[in-house]
Amino acid sequence: MTRAGLPSRGLREADLDTPALVVDLDSLERNLDRMAEAALTADVALRPHVKTHKCVTIARMQLERGAVGVCVQTVSEAEAMVEGGILDVFVANEVVGAGKLRRLARLAREATVTVCVDDPGNLDDLGRAVRRAGSSVGVMVEMNTAENRAGVPPGEPFLQLAQRVESTPSLRFVGLQAYNGVAQHIRDHPSRRAATERNTALVQESVDLLARNGIRCEVVSGGGTGTYDLEAASKVYSEIQPGTYVFMDADYLANRDRFGGPFRDFDVSLYVLATVMSRRPGIAIVDAGLKAISLGNGLPVVQGGGALYKRFADEHGVLAPADRPLPDLGHQVRLMPVNCDPTVNLYDHLVGLRNGVVEEVWAVDARGY
Amino acid sequence: MTRAGLPSRGLREADLDTPALVVDLDSLERNLDRMAEAALTADVALRPHVKTHKCVTIARMQLERGAVGVCVQTVSEAEAMVEGGILDVFVANEVVGAGKLRRLARLAREATVTVCVDDPGNLDDLGRAVRRAGSSVGVMVEMNTAENRAGVPPGEPFLQLAQRVESTPSLRFVGLQAYNGVAQHIRDHPSRRAATERNTALVQESVDLLARNGIRCEVVSGGGTGTYDLEAASKVYSEIQPGTYVFMDADYLANRDRFGGPFRDFDVSLYVLATVMSRRPGIAIVDAGLKAISLGNGLPVVQGGGALYKRFADEHGVLAPADRPLPDLGHQVRLMPVNCDPTVNLYDHLVGLRNGVVEEVWAVDARGY
Repeated sequence: MTRAGLPSRGLREADLDTPALVVDLDSLERNLDRMAEAALTADVALRPHVKTHKCVTIARMQLERGAVGVCVQTVSEAEAMVEGGILDVFVANEVVGAGKLRRLARLAREATVTVCVDDPGNLDDLGRAVRRAGSSVGVMVEMNTAENRAGVPPGEPFLQLAQRVESTPSLRFVGLQAYNGVAQHIRDHPSRRAATERNTALVQESVDLLARNGIRCEVVSGGGTGTYDLEAASKVYSEIQPGTYVFMDADYLANRDRFGGPFRDFDVSLYVLATVMSRRPGIAIVDAGLKAISLGNGLPVVQGGGALYKRFADEHGVLAPADRPLPDLGHQVRLMPVNCDPTVNLYDHLVGLRNGVVEEVWAVDARGY
Repeated sequence: MTRAGLPSRGLREADLDTPALVVDLDSLERNLDRMAEAALTADVALRPHVKTHKCVTIARMQLERGAVGVCVQTVSEAEAMVEGGILDVFVANEVVGAGKLRRLARLAREATVTVCVDDPGNLDDLGRAVRRAGSSVGVMVEMNTAENRAGVPPGEPFLQLAQRVESTPSLRFVGLQAYNGVAQHIRDHPSRRAATERNTALVQESVDLLARNGIRCEVVSGGGTGTYDLEAASKVYSEIQPGTYVFMDADYLANRDRFGGPFRDFDVSLYVLATVMSRRPGIAIVDAGLKAISLGNGLPVVQGGGALYKRFADEHGVLAPADRPLPDLGHQVRLMPVNCDPTVNLYDHLVGLRNGVVEEVWAVDARGY
């Protein structure tokens, strides 16, 4: 069959089939170095969230730079990581249902596995599954922060669930998970700091409450790309779990940093490469729409400006001119997603470029479910 | 490894791992029958667009019911269909770039391949690629309809491009492609009809212009799930190319039919099955967010009502109660996507259910690129 194969090393970017998910390796490596250094300087553990890249190779690069393990969001992601040799995995999410709990418990025979819990019934199910598998699983009790997503309320409910973990054979109480998702994209740094400090104060109270009841939180984990510096400096969190910093995206780029300038702690390294496939005055249509870029959080940004991504269909994007002529038929544009995680999830492979030449092709190992 | 395998035949829906993409087979088969009958009654050819399902098995079910071939949107989809034994494929889209044109031209050695063109330079590139491959490719000139997406303007530009096809050895001029995407979701039938009739009049003029210049449009193709009945009845279109009718989605459900009632020509057959993974008063969090449902066109609808899908994150959806209590922790909900095509594209498999029991597991053969 004539189906397109994977691009070869040495191929130029201009010769790549599109749409393609490309990552600039220099920028990626700089991002990995910077976050590793930030964690080291602040003396907190770095446990990057791999739901962003779902790629064993990038997870290994993170571990080589000192990460203590990885966070994942689903059992499938955990399985893909362990299969790839990543042997310390924290499912920073609740796992519900007999089948998934069984898989999680079995995975813990091969690797250090930790999981979030926010419900006593679910905790009991987990305990039974782990006992049956003859393994041991670490438990982080998730605390509901400002986000109002999953998690138990701070204080007494948190204590009760932690005590229930302590009294469940085969489970190890590890600590507290409090990821404040909403704070990540608060645009100005003072407000982001204030939101994080409110959250951190609640976390501190719960940690203290547990201590008064003889339970030690070995790990307090949270923090994303938008607030990693705040949790790292808090002296309350012992671990940060940022994900997006490896690639960055248009949403984080819109944040302001602690000096009031644009948030540029990390560089954009990830793009969807698209080709102009139809062209007429004032309009360029590219081959990247809903199936090539996740658009649930907004429209992508054309790298270098010059054009605006205005409308989309399943396989098409419509560019309008900004401050210079539109690209011609057959020319490529790089599109920066607003949200990189679900965009990566659309692809089977990441194409690593250095100076515009293919150097690596990595599987998105944990794509899909 | 313990990675979850595919669900077995006979498994009950309640025991499926989630998120899962499920299709109700009774509804699917009814939809296939109804569209086949509508085309037969109107005496037009049916060439369903398989970008909706990307699944060879469903394409075969369409051919068995009389479809003359399939439409695809990309070269990869065309390759997947030919590989699966579907031997008449129309790429209802422009194909740009040397690599893709080469693959298309080679594919035409194994199957009847037709493609859209809207640019003379691209047409010349196509002609060269086909000559080099020693094959023959059919060309449909795409006409720009109200949608302002791809396509040449009606009238003289259309004629010139058709003449250029006629004078290119190795290419066969087949006819005119005019798919009016915008008209599909005009809510009331009279306005949808008016928009389609305006479009059809332009198509008729261009067909007549060609006839006066000695060129016959063997095929005039267009029409989607929202307007299939209008193009079918037009006596101008010889072929309809609906896709979504196999599954339906919340966007088409919001249309009105020709009697002023809700558009129920086809039944919803496709759902994302999700599980409540965290629960507290007034909130149920399910395990289906941006990575499980394409949300670029809007939020999914909870089947049977009772709850509203209010917010989402990458892997989470937040349900709020509507007119009855929310489902409990561990319970499942069926979510109806607003746009089924890019949702299907997130999955490797479709799970076919009959009366809530797994009967088929089909590969989404053309997922990805």
